[in-house]
Amino acid sequence: DPKLKIFALNSNKPLAEKIAEAVGVKLGKTSVDRFSDGEIRINIEESIRGDQVYIIQSTSAPVNDNLMELLIMIDALRRASAKTINVVIPYYGYARQDRKARSREPITAKLVANMLETAGATRILALDLHAAQIQGFFDIPLDHLMGAPLLADYFLTHHLDENAVVVSPDHGGVTRARKLAEFLKAPIAIIDKRRPRANVAEVMNIIGDVKGKRAIMIDDMIDTAGTITLGAQALMDAGATEVYASCTHPVLSGPAIERIEKSPIKKLVVTDSIELPAEKQIAKIEQVSVGQLMGQAIKFIHENKPVSPLFKNRFH
Amino acid sequence: DPKLKIFALNSNKPLAEKIAEAVGVKLGKTSVDRFSDGEIRINIEESIRGDQVYIIQSTSAPVNDNLMELLIMIDALRRASAKTINVVIPYYGYARQDRKARSREPITAKLVANMLETAGATRILALDLHAAQIQGFFDIPLDHLMGAPLLADYFLTHHLDENAVVVSPDHGGVTRARKLAEFLKAPIAIIDKRRPRANVAEVMNIIGDVKGKRAIMIDDMIDTAGTITLGAQALMDAGATEVYASCTHPVLSGPAIERIEKSPIKKLVVTDSIELPAEKQIAKIEQVSVGQLMGQAIKFIHENKPVSPLFKNRFH
Ligand SMILES: Nc1ncnc2c1ncn2[C@@H]1O[C@H](COP(=O)(O)O)[C@@H](O)[C@H]1O
Ligand SMILES: Nc1ncnc2c1ncn2[C@@H]1O[C@H](COP(=O)(O)O)[C@@H](O)[C@H]1O
Repeated sequence: DPKLKIFALNSNKPLAEKIAEAVGVKLGKTSVDRFSDGEIRINIEESIRGDQVYIIQSTSAPVNDNLMELLIMIDALRRASAKTINVVIPYYGYARQDRKARSREPITAKLVANMLETAGATRILALDLHAAQIQGFFDIPLDHLMGAPLLADYFLTHHLDENAVVVSPDHGGVTRARKLAEFLKAPIAIIDKRRPRANVAEVMNIIGDVKGKRAIMIDDMIDTAGTITLGAQALMDAGATEVYASCTHPVLSGPAIERIEKSPIKKLVVTDSIELPAEKQIAKIEQVSVGQLMGQAIKFIHENKPVSPLFKNRFH
Repeated sequence: DPKLKIFALNSNKPLAEKIAEAVGVKLGKTSVDRFSDGEIRINIEESIRGDQVYIIQSTSAPVNDNLMELLIMIDALRRASAKTINVVIPYYGYARQDRKARSREPITAKLVANMLETAGATRILALDLHAAQIQGFFDIPLDHLMGAPLLADYFLTHHLDENAVVVSPDHGGVTRARKLAEFLKAPIAIIDKRRPRANVAEVMNIIGDVKGKRAIMIDDMIDTAGTITLGAQALMDAGATEVYASCTHPVLSGPAIERIEKSPIKKLVVTDSIELPAEKQIAKIEQVSVGQLMGQAIKFIHENKPVSPLFKNRFH
């Protein structure tokens, strides 16, 4: 029987530890560091010949370093005769570059997919891809997990579902908001950003009833936190009693932390798909782990069972 | 007639300017910068539909960023209908990871070749690849230029060929040393490093006659400068009157600059295949430009002429 082995690269070792624990194995022995000139040096320190190997790596910042670590590791595993190379990507970087919005733009999300396949990946396990269409960028099997059930768990456990309305910060996120709303048995609302005329500030118009309610915003990722903090203010202005926010991927770059601190958001609930450095671990941010979820998914894949039941229901 | 266009990425803009000047065109309009979270954003700001495009990029440090810039640019050019995408790589990073020296190592130089082809490169123009075998990692045409004639030019112009002996710092570099020696009409010597017993310091044994001569060492790249500075000392100890060093690629990482400053090396002559930051531009280091050479090569390629005459003779 081929062995199941899990290797962690450098982007998110705490999550990798949790995933390995959930699967019930120890992380494989490897060292991933740098030569003097900054080139990545990888040593796999145990045989993996004929094994089913899982690599855990988020392509979060520094995205190019994390991506190259992943590609080089896949190359090394392939040349060392791994039976399968399963790439677990809790956060898929470059996902917003998923179409030509203007002439002569790259489609980097597709380039990354091609690189992973060329390097030798045989399967992908992803979590809340920015666009579900990215699944189609791969010709190898891809399982797509969902963070909403875990985020729902947080709100349910803390009795925040009472008198709640789930708010999508834009029209593209309505399906995700509806998913969370189902778990919370709450109605939904949508923030409708419009620019009345060119060179005039955007107006945040709220579709749906939030007056006197606890508003819970949900998005797949929060990057500079502009949309979410402006939305929170608009919700308060529209009479919400308090505002919570949640997302799967806490990118939190640039002014994000300062904006969140200053905003009326009471709590921001995120997952650990991206490791938060100490300076981003502020009191307002709660992290729930996707370790159990991803560990279960790996077990199901290894046993040739479908992974979808993992998020059909509330996740425990 | 398809137009010839040259685009520069961020690794080595001064060299790109020189190459464009030698070809007689202006650099194409593009902006290559970062989103807030560090992801690369590329905008090609002029049409390149049906054009023969040349991209100038060294994959020097920060190697992963420079490599990803290159891959994303290739992707954007391909999707914008460039007729050909010619990748000019004055310095090819990851070249030392060109074989499995131990079990379970990656072969990153081959991975990089695959990535470039997958992204859409149609031709490569390289300069002094660490191993000539890397040419075979590509299935697309590759032209391989040589820096030795340019380095020879420096020594000839400065009348340093008189009473000179060209020294290879190891057995792998003898062909390169012989090439330089031909230009200088000088004999060669070889430094033969041996470790007499395990856990005993290496001994630098010099094969050939250096006593009373001006020793000129040549290598393809100088990284931490350990070999070259120890070699310089060994040459002085063996009676050389003075020691010069030269290489095509000034990687110069970690302790390199300090070691060179402290060594008996009188001058280190390098090319501009890698841009030197201000703190590495010390008096002992002379840079000669490969701009004319690479510009000529681009012209020859564009006109379907062979590029080899460019380095059969001394380069002017
Ligand atoms: N890393 C990034 N940070 C901010 N914006 C991005 C990033 N990558 C791509 N984009 C832009 O975001 C837009 C797509 O985002 P979205 O509409 O949310 O799918 C495109 O116009 C991209 O140019
Ligand atoms: N960036 C690097 N810096 C230092 N050594 C490296 C680097 N990349 C690869 N190597 C090692 O250098 C050796 C090959 O160098 P060489 O014998 O000069 O071709 C291999 O053992 C590699 O592990």
